[in-house]
Amino acid sequence: MTMSDRPTITTFAWVPEFARGFVRDLRPRWALEEIGEPYEVELIRDAKTDEYRCRQPFGQVPFLSDGTLEMFESGAGLLHLARKSERLMPRDPAGEAETQQWTIAALNSIEMISVPWWFLEISGAEDNRLAGWMEKRLGQMEQVLSAREWLVGDRFTVADLLMADVLRIPKVRAYGDRPVTEAYVARMTDRPAFRKAHADQLAHFAAADASRSS
Amino acid sequence: MTMSDRPTITTFAWVPEFARGFVRDLRPRWALEEIGEPYEVELIRDAKTDEYRCRQPFGQVPFLSDGTLEMFESGAGLLHLARKSERLMPRDPAGEAETQQWTIAALNSIEMISVPWWFLEISGAEDNRLAGWMEKRLGQMEQVLSAREWLVGDRFTVADLLMADVLRIPKVRAYGDRPVTEAYVARMTDRPAFRKAHADQLAHFAAADASRSS
Repeated sequence: MTMSDRPTITTFAWVPEFARGFVRDLRPRWALEEIGEPYEVELIRDAKTDEYRCRQPFGQVPFLSDGTLEMFESGAGLLHLARKSERLMPRDPAGEAETQQWTIAALNSIEMISVPWWFLEISGAEDNRLAGWMEKRLGQMEQVLSAREWLVGDRFTVADLLMADVLRIPKVRAYGDRPVTEAYVARMTDRPAFRKAHADQLAHFAAADASRSS
Repeated sequence: MTMSDRPTITTFAWVPEFARGFVRDLRPRWALEEIGEPYEVELIRDAKTDEYRCRQPFGQVPFLSDGTLEMFESGAGLLHLARKSERLMPRDPAGEAETQQWTIAALNSIEMISVPWWFLEISGAEDNRLAGWMEKRLGQMEQVLSAREWLVGDRFTVADLLMADVLRIPKVRAYGDRPVTEAYVARMTDRPAFRKAHADQLAHFAAADASRSS
């Protein structure tokens, strides 16, 4: 464990190339870049050790420490950071409720389908039985995004951050023709904070490669 | 829309028998029973109307109104209610972070697998490719629950409410032999607030049946 005053993101020391740019430490990295708060990165080689399991029973990253607080689940880390900074969430009760609603929607109405759908895709199932459900949800998001620039009010929130990250995987697979969703994801991932966070994650794994081969 | 001062849960007027006791309006019902706060139930016959879609773009229930606040996503409704009452979440920052972490874990680490797994089960897929992942997560939860009575500290929180509800579906299908998880779910669903909420949901649909056949 690090002893830093700064927020600390725990993530893998190394992942295979196809996963780079998609490891979920990107989410708190991006959020902290939006806030402009410096942070540390702590590396683990193995998420299956007993020591790490005590902190994260599902053996996943990221793990976020902030002062005396510690938490797993990227969604929980994001809501924590959003409560620290108005840049990620409005301060009025209605804006807060709406931000929370769309944050949970990204996790439980979209990612709950997209991740298992993706898992079936890459596991080589000939008949992906989640495809219809996935189509339906992407169609609904296309409709939602057709009517607005941001998920909450007229501003960026942590809900856009998470929704854009969740939607990046179907986008990469060029799933269907959803011009509004594509434009939304492009707009969100063109933000300086995303680009910095993404570049930092890629640089981190490239450095890990270099140290492996040296 | 109702014009009540009480929190109002919007749910279906009728569902087929196999779904009764499992419709997600049970979650806010249960939470409001734990708090001891009276609530209203508003019924919709169809979640696909334009009017309802404006409020809930995925055509799901429940929808929660509370004063001027409105929100979909049962997880968001639960976190809102937990912020209203200490009975659902401790008030210290560490307890709050931990409650939020386990609430999101129920949605994004367990339900993200269990619901698509369940969907494949009932869709009659011979080879359920999510079975291995489901096994792994249930095994991890069995370990987590072996070490503690509650997910957060030494008390009931909204995280237990949600986790127990998420785990009820695999339990019904008698998936594997997980005595600690089974005992945990039995303990949580034996709480008076769950029993009242569950009975009220069943009674509501039975009444809907009666009015249909009359």
